[in-house]
Amino acid sequence: MFLFWFLPETDPSSKERDEVIVRSIYDEALVNGQAYRWLDFLANEIGGRLSGSPQAAMAVEWSYQVMDTLGLDSVWKQPVMVPHWVRGEKEFAKFFSPNYLGDMEVAVCALGGSVATPREGITTQVVEVNDYDELKKLGRKQVEGKIVFFNVPMDHRHINTFHAYGHCAGYRFRGAGEAGKYGAVAMLMRSVGSQIDVYPHTGSMSYPDDTSIPRIPAAAISTVHANELSQALKIDPDLKFHLRQHCYTLPDKLSYNVIGEIRGSEFPDQFIVVSGHLDSWDIGDGAHDDGAGCVQSIEVLRIFRALDIRPKRTIRAVMYMNEENGARGGIEYAAEAKRKGEKHLAAIESDRGGFTPQGFDVFDSLAIVHQLQNFKDIYEPYDVFKFIQGWGGVDINFLKELGTVCIGLVADSQRYFDYHHCALDTFDKVNQRELHLGAAAMAALVYLIDMHGLER
Amino acid sequence: MFLFWFLPETDPSSKERDEVIVRSIYDEALVNGQAYRWLDFLANEIGGRLSGSPQAAMAVEWSYQVMDTLGLDSVWKQPVMVPHWVRGEKEFAKFFSPNYLGDMEVAVCALGGSVATPREGITTQVVEVNDYDELKKLGRKQVEGKIVFFNVPMDHRHINTFHAYGHCAGYRFRGAGEAGKYGAVAMLMRSVGSQIDVYPHTGSMSYPDDTSIPRIPAAAISTVHANELSQALKIDPDLKFHLRQHCYTLPDKLSYNVIGEIRGSEFPDQFIVVSGHLDSWDIGDGAHDDGAGCVQSIEVLRIFRALDIRPKRTIRAVMYMNEENGARGGIEYAAEAKRKGEKHLAAIESDRGGFTPQGFDVFDSLAIVHQLQNFKDIYEPYDVFKFIQGWGGVDINFLKELGTVCIGLVADSQRYFDYHHCALDTFDKVNQRELHLGAAAMAALVYLIDMHGLER
Repeated sequence: MFLFWFLPETDPSSKERDEVIVRSIYDEALVNGQAYRWLDFLANEIGGRLSGSPQAAMAVEWSYQVMDTLGLDSVWKQPVMVPHWVRGEKEFAKFFSPNYLGDMEVAVCALGGSVATPREGITTQVVEVNDYDELKKLGRKQVEGKIVFFNVPMDHRHINTFHAYGHCAGYRFRGAGEAGKYGAVAMLMRSVGSQIDVYPHTGSMSYPDDTSIPRIPAAAISTVHANELSQALKIDPDLKFHLRQHCYTLPDKLSYNVIGEIRGSEFPDQFIVVSGHLDSWDIGDGAHDDGAGCVQSIEVLRIFRALDIRPKRTIRAVMYMNEENGARGGIEYAAEAKRKGEKHLAAIESDRGGFTPQGFDVFDSLAIVHQLQNFKDIYEPYDVFKFIQGWGGVDINFLKELGTVCIGLVADSQRYFDYHHCALDTFDKVNQRELHLGAAAMAALVYLIDMHGLER
Repeated sequence: MFLFWFLPETDPSSKERDEVIVRSIYDEALVNGQAYRWLDFLANEIGGRLSGSPQAAMAVEWSYQVMDTLGLDSVWKQPVMVPHWVRGEKEFAKFFSPNYLGDMEVAVCALGGSVATPREGITTQVVEVNDYDELKKLGRKQVEGKIVFFNVPMDHRHINTFHAYGHCAGYRFRGAGEAGKYGAVAMLMRSVGSQIDVYPHTGSMSYPDDTSIPRIPAAAISTVHANELSQALKIDPDLKFHLRQHCYTLPDKLSYNVIGEIRGSEFPDQFIVVSGHLDSWDIGDGAHDDGAGCVQSIEVLRIFRALDIRPKRTIRAVMYMNEENGARGGIEYAAEAKRKGEKHLAAIESDRGGFTPQGFDVFDSLAIVHQLQNFKDIYEPYDVFKFIQGWGGVDINFLKELGTVCIGLVADSQRYFDYHHCALDTFDKVNQRELHLGAAAMAALVYLIDMHGLER
């Protein structure tokens, strides 16, 4: 039985029909939502799941099995080779400032992709800089043999905390390469977090392609300890800092994107994707980043089945592998879509935490943004108010060259960088209603795009 | 020095000027905000502060002292007699269902204003109802001598959780009176919370004026235990429930509203109020309800002083006493304003938790709402998007008869009823940025109303 048979049939694209169906999607998510329960398992029973880890493999099997219970038309695993970086034994760091606080152990964590220090660690002086210009001014003479400390705090004035993040994360990604150019022996960066606390935030880094630049160890130091180190350096500029980390990189490993699909009734060869990424960092349980996006995407398919909404186009939920340190899953998904000539109309990714949804960032032309803004009225009762040009998502953006409209779910960003990439990204930080509202917002958009299409 | 001297002086009400000043208000709140630090003290050092309690008296002194450090034009305490209800020894409840789970201790808490049970408790049968109609149908014959259990869950379909709350809270407020009419010996209600957990939510209740209706003890039972009790009653409809509570009411006690003021430069006899309520329930630390509103209101004055914004009208931060169980502070404030003929142009209250601000509820005509909607563009960069007709606040609404525009700060409501009125309303549930954004939104509105006025 089609649940909405009682709706006006004369105009199946009527606003009234849309309103009723979107209302039913929200009701289903808020009353019978399963995403929170699923996330409980993924975060608490499987936990952190870095690409190549046993937990990542478990997450692949688990998400396959969850989707397999939903009565979808197909569920499958798409093979993809992923980098396999391992943190190893827990990092250790301390410094000694005779005129400040004496001996102080500090919380650090290796950045993803970094090399280790020698087994016995590195003990040397620190130079603090706030940007690359300062580093350049210091030059090789003052940097060689030392640890470069990028002490770049998040700028709290940004309302969207991702804007503050973007600036700092740049130092994470290429800071080691820049410091290495001047002969630094390690790179230490202020953790990119919005709170002053003892939880260092990890994240991916890379080395320059130029092999003449030495590959030096890179670590984040917690914000509270970054402040202490900076203070100590003012008093004891020659203090010695000790860093030990034991991370290493193994050969690439076979892993999978996990995909579930409801086949379209009219245009089965056209696709709309909802997605998150299944891998996470290893030091939390990856509840917000990005367990949330995964369970929300599965929930979209569950809602469609529960309400017996039969889409015209094929709807896929994609759990990408390896967003955090390589994006191989996103690359492979787009590559296979291209090989097969699959027409992907739109792809939505939820990868900004499971917080109250505020709207959608559209990685496309203003003409496309305006079409999506036509749905603004429908979303008004649900406090979803942002339909703007912006960033889609790391994984889905590879589809852009196939003409796909890439859309990022925008969630309230105020709390995200309290938890992001650190030990605090755990299930207890996720609110059930906020998570389920995000799933509903995505499901409604899939429904609306499927019903109305998008015209280039 | 006036900080904004460099702004265009030819048109002091220009949009450009407004944008710059609102931006500076947000920057000040996000970079130098003090509200979170203040709330830490109020919640963690003073704690729950029910009217008449020593903690409420401490909160009065503390808020006076905090405002006294801000260089305001005046800070004072406005005397008000408040009810003095005391919970006494912790409540205890259990039931015995031979065919279900046997003996089960359950989490309950007395509703504010309730009478005690006899010292040894009440042990009797339970009748479960879902609304007053069911109660009426059962009638005295099936209710007399029993405990009436209102098992009314929150309706999760509401996006604004206050709408779900409003329905359930009605049973809290007058359920004991309705049950008493039919000879019930106690009233038990399902806790009004959005989670299934073991934390019962208290809140105020009242008895009917009709003294022929017996005043029976009233308590809330945690949601998890409400579910268990309901299940047990299906299997053992005659099970016995035991309830003991020891609350009592002392004579009214002298307390205070605490008020700080920046005098207006052009119209000192016109007032704009920002406010929260200083009292809270006793079983949490009242961080969200309504420590948040208090520290945000003080923060508004701090921001004005820090930026040297000199308002044309007099701006008052009012910490009302006794919102939770009597609203005597709000009543007294309005009564004195009336006696003195003070013209209160607008009053803003923050009493919906210290969550991400979404906009403003305006308890006034659409003509007034439309004037406030003129500020929507200014607020757009700050994700403040709601300017609608609605509820102001318990305390400020007494000013309405003086012609005051009463405005409630609308905060994201998704998490509020996880914490509201229960042991979980504690400081750790408050996010610094969300709290400070709320203060900024209020400060900006005070600035804009002061600059542009409101026309009736």
